[in-house]
Amino acid sequence: MNQAIGVIDSGVGGLTVAHELMRQLPKEKLIYLGDTARCPYGPRSKEEVQQFTWEMVAFLLKKDIKMLVIACNTATAFTLNDLQEKLDIPVIGVIQPGARAAIKVTNNTHIGVIGTEGTIKSEAYKEALKKINEEIRVYPLACPLLVPMVEKGIIAGAEAQAVVAASLAPLEEFKQMDTLILGCTHYPLLKDTIQHAIGEQVTIISSSEETARETSTILDVHHLLNNEDQLPIHQFYTTGELVMFNKIAKSIFKDHKSEMLKIEKATLPMNQGA
Amino acid sequence: MNQAIGVIDSGVGGLTVAHELMRQLPKEKLIYLGDTARCPYGPRSKEEVQQFTWEMVAFLLKKDIKMLVIACNTATAFTLNDLQEKLDIPVIGVIQPGARAAIKVTNNTHIGVIGTEGTIKSEAYKEALKKINEEIRVYPLACPLLVPMVEKGIIAGAEAQAVVAASLAPLEEFKQMDTLILGCTHYPLLKDTIQHAIGEQVTIISSSEETARETSTILDVHHLLNNEDQLPIHQFYTTGELVMFNKIAKSIFKDHKSEMLKIEKATLPMNQGA
Repeated sequence: MNQAIGVIDSGVGGLTVAHELMRQLPKEKLIYLGDTARCPYGPRSKEEVQQFTWEMVAFLLKKDIKMLVIACNTATAFTLNDLQEKLDIPVIGVIQPGARAAIKVTNNTHIGVIGTEGTIKSEAYKEALKKINEEIRVYPLACPLLVPMVEKGIIAGAEAQAVVAASLAPLEEFKQMDTLILGCTHYPLLKDTIQHAIGEQVTIISSSEETARETSTILDVHHLLNNEDQLPIHQFYTTGELVMFNKIAKSIFKDHKSEMLKIEKATLPMNQGA
Repeated sequence: MNQAIGVIDSGVGGLTVAHELMRQLPKEKLIYLGDTARCPYGPRSKEEVQQFTWEMVAFLLKKDIKMLVIACNTATAFTLNDLQEKLDIPVIGVIQPGARAAIKVTNNTHIGVIGTEGTIKSEAYKEALKKINEEIRVYPLACPLLVPMVEKGIIAGAEAQAVVAASLAPLEEFKQMDTLILGCTHYPLLKDTIQHAIGEQVTIISSSEETARETSTILDVHHLLNNEDQLPIHQFYTTGELVMFNKIAKSIFKDHKSEMLKIEKATLPMNQGA
């Protein structure tokens, strides 16, 4: 089963999922599509996110993928069930793996979740956690400043620290929280800064790492793991500016040879019609 | 989908998997069968392990289970593929979840595995790790003294420390190892003692925790999660002595009310014929 894994995201955040997929599944080929031109999805309506996501899925299905990873929390919240129902290939989102990992890790069932406004308003994490364990206490917090900051390439330094600290301040009153889910695929890029702000006593769950781990599980269970020995060449598409996408991709994939990565511009139906 | 999850083991080791399933999936009902009368499986032939495992599976299939967890590394090594092929329900073993978790956690791809003679000789962990990443360096070590010790109820104190230290001594030369898989479901009961012997710089992966986590994933993906609110009553069977099984079960399930656990004697075909 040497087809590629399809990965979609609203922009560059899903590259942290792609990076973990490349690290945890080095034999698997990825085809990634980031809708950078219309990022962020966080503040958009459900209907808009659904339409944009289906446009991305249609683009990737033409490339003959064996599995789909929705590497965007907002898109997962609004489209996962629909995609799982309508596609013939396994589909995984980023919300459930993070929820399951948090349930594994927590010692006292007090779990915090940070994400975009769309993800937090959708209550998708709360739902995923409570579906498994009604007793879980969930502390959700929208952090609308973090994605725009990361998309500008600011992931460390004084400005990042100040914005992260201010964003997370409302969590201070939840003293019992022992686990925090990074409910946005941009946030792993800020992990050290977040850990510093929140304190060492809280275990941070990266939905990117956990989604890659569960992709591994699902490929194995469906007998879809690649059995070729050749190292794959990954294909990345962006609907937006190539220069900024390239810059961020290079900083995330600094441990990979550049000839393993092909980055191109993609045009979705909406852009064509414009 | 309010049927039970079936769990089989050669004895009491799988109770650590059952405990994690109860912790991570509190709405799910378990039916557990431990073949204590014929434990340990570690030194037995492949054919014997296969025959005993199929006898346990036949016993549980009559109880109408929705998924099967092989909570024994030796049985997983020798029967997983066959069971996945022949049963209509999802089947998961304890080897692949531990392997995937180790791949997620390691920073330098140097991974140790400890297990019974049967598990280590089967090279099942090496195979599971290399299937995903050829670059992984695997350090396997059989620790034949640990299961008999745990089955006697010795899991802490000076004797446990001495036996664990002597068993793990050969790993000392693998200075680069940053991750150690507990490739036997008895070993989580010795986790603190093992961590102390091996040093804090090595991350320990419990195949019990990871198997429960992946059971959660697979139930969700197959739309098999229990949606009833009532707390389940779990059913445990042993082919051996009830007194010792009861004693060990109570020490593992000390955080659960005893009315949630029913423990009974089971008779498999081999015992009936004897």
